Amino acid sequence: MSVTEPALLSLTEVASAIADKKISSREATQSCLDRVAKWQPHLNAYMSIEADSALKAADAADAALAKSESRGALHGVPLAHKDMYYDEGHIVTCGSLIRKDWVAKTTATSLQRLKDAGTVRLGSLQMVEFAYGPLGHNVHYGAVRNPWNVDHVTGGSSSGSGSAVGARLTFAALGSDTGGSIRMPAHFCGVSGLKTTVGLVSRAGAMPLSQSLDTVGPLARTVEDCALLTKLMAGADPLDPTTSIRDVPDYTAATKASAKGMTIGIPKAFYVDDLDADTAEILQATITALKDEGIKVVEVDLPNQGQLTAACQFVLATEAAAMHKRWMIERPQDYGAQVLMRLQNGLAIAGVAYLEAMRWRGPALAAHLAAVAGVDALLAPVAPMAAPTIAETDVGNSLGAEALIQRVTRFTRPINYLGLPALSIPAGFTKTKLPVGMQLIGKPFDEATLLTIGGTFQRATDHHMKCPELP
Amino acid sequence: MSVTEPALLSLTEVASAIADKKISSREATQSCLDRVAKWQPHLNAYMSIEADSALKAADAADAALAKSESRGALHGVPLAHKDMYYDEGHIVTCGSLIRKDWVAKTTATSLQRLKDAGTVRLGSLQMVEFAYGPLGHNVHYGAVRNPWNVDHVTGGSSSGSGSAVGARLTFAALGSDTGGSIRMPAHFCGVSGLKTTVGLVSRAGAMPLSQSLDTVGPLARTVEDCALLTKLMAGADPLDPTTSIRDVPDYTAATKASAKGMTIGIPKAFYVDDLDADTAEILQATITALKDEGIKVVEVDLPNQGQLTAACQFVLATEAAAMHKRWMIERPQDYGAQVLMRLQNGLAIAGVAYLEAMRWRGPALAAHLAAVAGVDALLAPVAPMAAPTIAETDVGNSLGAEALIQRVTRFTRPINYLGLPALSIPAGFTKTKLPVGMQLIGKPFDEATLLTIGGTFQRATDHHMKCPELP
Repeated sequence: MSVTEPALLSLTEVASAIADKKISSREATQSCLDRVAKWQPHLNAYMSIEADSALKAADAADAALAKSESRGALHGVPLAHKDMYYDEGHIVTCGSLIRKDWVAKTTATSLQRLKDAGTVRLGSLQMVEFAYGPLGHNVHYGAVRNPWNVDHVTGGSSSGSGSAVGARLTFAALGSDTGGSIRMPAHFCGVSGLKTTVGLVSRAGAMPLSQSLDTVGPLARTVEDCALLTKLMAGADPLDPTTSIRDVPDYTAATKASAKGMTIGIPKAFYVDDLDADTAEILQATITALKDEGIKVVEVDLPNQGQLTAACQFVLATEAAAMHKRWMIERPQDYGAQVLMRLQNGLAIAGVAYLEAMRWRGPALAAHLAAVAGVDALLAPVAPMAAPTIAETDVGNSLGAEALIQRVTRFTRPINYLGLPALSIPAGFTKTKLPVGMQLIGKPFDEATLLTIGGTFQRATDHHMKCPELP
Repeated sequence: MSVTEPALLSLTEVASAIADKKISSREATQSCLDRVAKWQPHLNAYMSIEADSALKAADAADAALAKSESRGALHGVPLAHKDMYYDEGHIVTCGSLIRKDWVAKTTATSLQRLKDAGTVRLGSLQMVEFAYGPLGHNVHYGAVRNPWNVDHVTGGSSSGSGSAVGARLTFAALGSDTGGSIRMPAHFCGVSGLKTTVGLVSRAGAMPLSQSLDTVGPLARTVEDCALLTKLMAGADPLDPTTSIRDVPDYTAATKASAKGMTIGIPKAFYVDDLDADTAEILQATITALKDEGIKVVEVDLPNQGQLTAACQFVLATEAAAMHKRWMIERPQDYGAQVLMRLQNGLAIAGVAYLEAMRWRGPALAAHLAAVAGVDALLAPVAPMAAPTIAETDVGNSLGAEALIQRVTRFTRPINYLGLPALSIPAGFTKTKLPVGMQLIGKPFDEATLLTIGGTFQRATDHHMKCPELP
C-alpha cells in the first residue's frame, strides 16, 4: 500500500492502514489537514477547520492503539461532517446566521455511533442554509465550489460534504437527503452517496428540516465506504421513534457480493427525458458496463413521477415552514432571501392539502412497488446534466436561474416522497471534465442490493478513483 | 341469579349465565329484542334491528354450546354497536346519508375480536353523522333520545350506544371517542364508558374521523363489563401501526382489585369551574365515597386546559376535513348543515398551524405528567351539567344553542389531545332525575388503575344499577 499521501486512501483503506499501524492517525490527519490548507481557499468546503484539536485527538488514538486499545472500526480516522449534526460542546451553525454561535448540548445519534467507532473530528463542513436549497449557494458563508471546476456548483444542500470528499479533504462525510441533498452533491462532485430509507438511520440530533422526509446518509469515495458508515449508523434508536430495524444487514459483505444475475430497470420516461447529450451517453455506457457484469437490464413503466414531486413539495414546504415559523416571525432579517422565500411558501399550504399529500404516500408506494416488482433496482441519472455554474444558478442575479434549478433538481424528490433508498455512484465525465452520477433506486430497507450493484460497478470501472487537481 | 328478564343482567353476568347454561343465547337475545321493540319508538337508539338473523345466530350459539363448543368469553352474547364499525357484508351507515347503503368489505379488528369471542349481532346503533358532533342530533335519521327523559340529548357522537346501553337494549356497545364521544353519552345516559389510550385498541376498520385522536372503546353497564370488552379488543394489530401493546393487562382482575391507598387528584380549576349545582354536589359526594374506600384525595394544579382544547380542535378539524374533502366537493348536499359547516371550518387551517398543534403534543403531555406525578388518577366531571334538551341544543333552531354546546363539551377534549385514557362512571342523579357521570383520567396505557378505582367505586355505590323506566 502506497502511503505517500494518506489522504488519497479510501475510508476503508485508511481505517485498515491505521489499525494495522501502517500509518498513524496523526499521519492520516495531517495529510487531510495539508490538503485542506491547499484547497480550502478555492472551495470554501469547510465551515470550521480544527487542526490542533484534531491532531491532539489523533495522537490520543495513536497512543491508545499502541496499548492495543482500539475503539472500533474507524479508530483514529479523521472525518468532518455537514454542519448540522449536533456534537455536544461544538458550534453547529446549520449553515445559518441564526445558529452562527449555537453550541450543541447533545450529540446526534448517527454522529455518536461514528465517534464510538473511533473517529477523530477534523472540523465541520459547509452546507446550504438550514439545508433548504439544492445547489450549494449560501449568502452568509459564500457558495461552496466544485473541486472539478470552481466556477461550478457542488449541488446541495450537503455542498461541503460533496466538495470536501471530492477533493479528498476528508475520507467521508455525513450528508442529509430531504429532497436530494446527498445525491445531488455526490453526482456533481464525483463521489458516492447513499440516501437511506426513511427509518433506517436515526435523525435524533440532526437538524430537522422535514420530519417525514429527512434522511441521514454518507458521502464517500467508494460504495464500500458508504456501506461501512451506514452499517455503523443504522438501526433502532430510542431517541428517534421512526427507526425500527434491529438486525442491520452486513452492508460491507453486500458491497463485496456480485450482482451477476440481478435485474435493473430503466424508467421509460421522466428520468430519461430531456437529458444533456453527455448524460444520455453516460447512462448508456453505465447500462453497457452493468450488462458486461452479467446484470440484466429491462425497461420499466413507472407511475407519474411529476405527481410524486408535487406531493413531496407539499410535505417538505409545510413541514419546513412549521419547523421555522418562530424564527420567521422573530428573525426574518437573519435568513438569506431565497431560503426565507422558500420557507414562506410553506405558510400558505392548507393543512388539508398537507394531510392529503401525506396520506397518498402509502398508495403511491404500493403503486411504485408493483411497477418495480420484476427488478432488483432502478437506474436513472441523478440530474439531467452535470454541474451548472454558480453564476447561472444564482436566483436574483441570473434571469434563467429558477428554470435551470427546476430542471436540474427534478430527478430526486419522487424518491424522497416514497421514502426509498438510493445510491448515487460516479458514472463518467462530460467533455468539459465534470463528473456525472447515476442513482440506483431500491426498495424500502433494501440498501444491501444497491450496495451489491454499486460495488460490482465500481470493481469494473474507475470513475470513482478519479481525483480533481488543484486549480 | 334471577333471570326473569335476562336483558337486565350485566354483560359479565349474561356471558356467565349462558356459559353455565342457566339461560340460552336465544333467551338473552329475545329478551333484548323485546326491550328494543318497546323502547325503540321512544329512543331511536337502533339504526338497524336484525331480529331474525340474531335469533338464528343465537340458536347456532346454543347448538354449539350443547356440543361443548364455546367460541370464547362472550359466547352467545347479543350485542349491537355504533354503526361505524365495518362488519363484512353489512351496511355501515356511519350515521350518514352518504354511506346510507354502503356495504363493508372488511371487518373492524376491534369488532372481529369480539366476534371471535362469540358475540351475536343484534343490529347496529345510531350515531351522529360521521361521528362529528357532541350531543346526538342527526338530521338524516333523527336525534337519539335519552332513556331517562326523552326530551333530552343522549350526548354524542356515540348517541345510540349511550341510549341503548342506558335502556338495556344491548348488554354493551362499542363507541368511539375523538373529542368526548364515549364519555359524553356515558355521562348523559348513566352508563360506564372507557376512552382508551391512543394506541391501545386498533382503529383498523373503524370509520376514521381524526387519525391522531380517534379511539375505540366500550360503553357498558359496569366498569367490569368495560374491562372485559377492552381486554378482548386491546393489543397490537398489524392493520393499525399505531398499536403496539403486546402484553395486555388483565383488566378484569384490575376491576376486582381494591383502590385503597391510591391517590386521586381533583383539578383546582377548569374542570371544577362553572358547574351546575347538582353536578358540583355529585362531585363532592363522589369524593366522599372514594375517601370512604380509603382513597386519598388531593388537589392538583394542571397546565392550561383551554390551550389543550384549542390544539385538539386544530388537529381534529384539519384531519376531519382532509378525510372528508372529496365528499365535501362531490356531495356537499348530502351532509347535514351543521356537520358540513364543522368540516368546512377545517379547510381554512394552515398546515403549519396543524403541525404546530401536533408537535406540541409531546411537550404538553410531559407537562401534564409532571403535574400529575403525585396521583394515580384525576377525577373530574365529564361535563358541567347533566343532559340539556334536544330542542335547546339544536343549532339553527335555538339562539343559545352554540354557547350551550360550548359549555357542555369543554371537559373532554384536553384528554383526547393528550391521548390519555379516561373512564366515565355514573356518579348520581340531578333533582330532575338525569344521570351525572364523573371521569377518571389516567396515565398513558394505565387503564388498569382507572378500572381499579372505578370497580372500587361501583362496589360501594349503586348509581350504575339504576335503570330508566319506559316513558
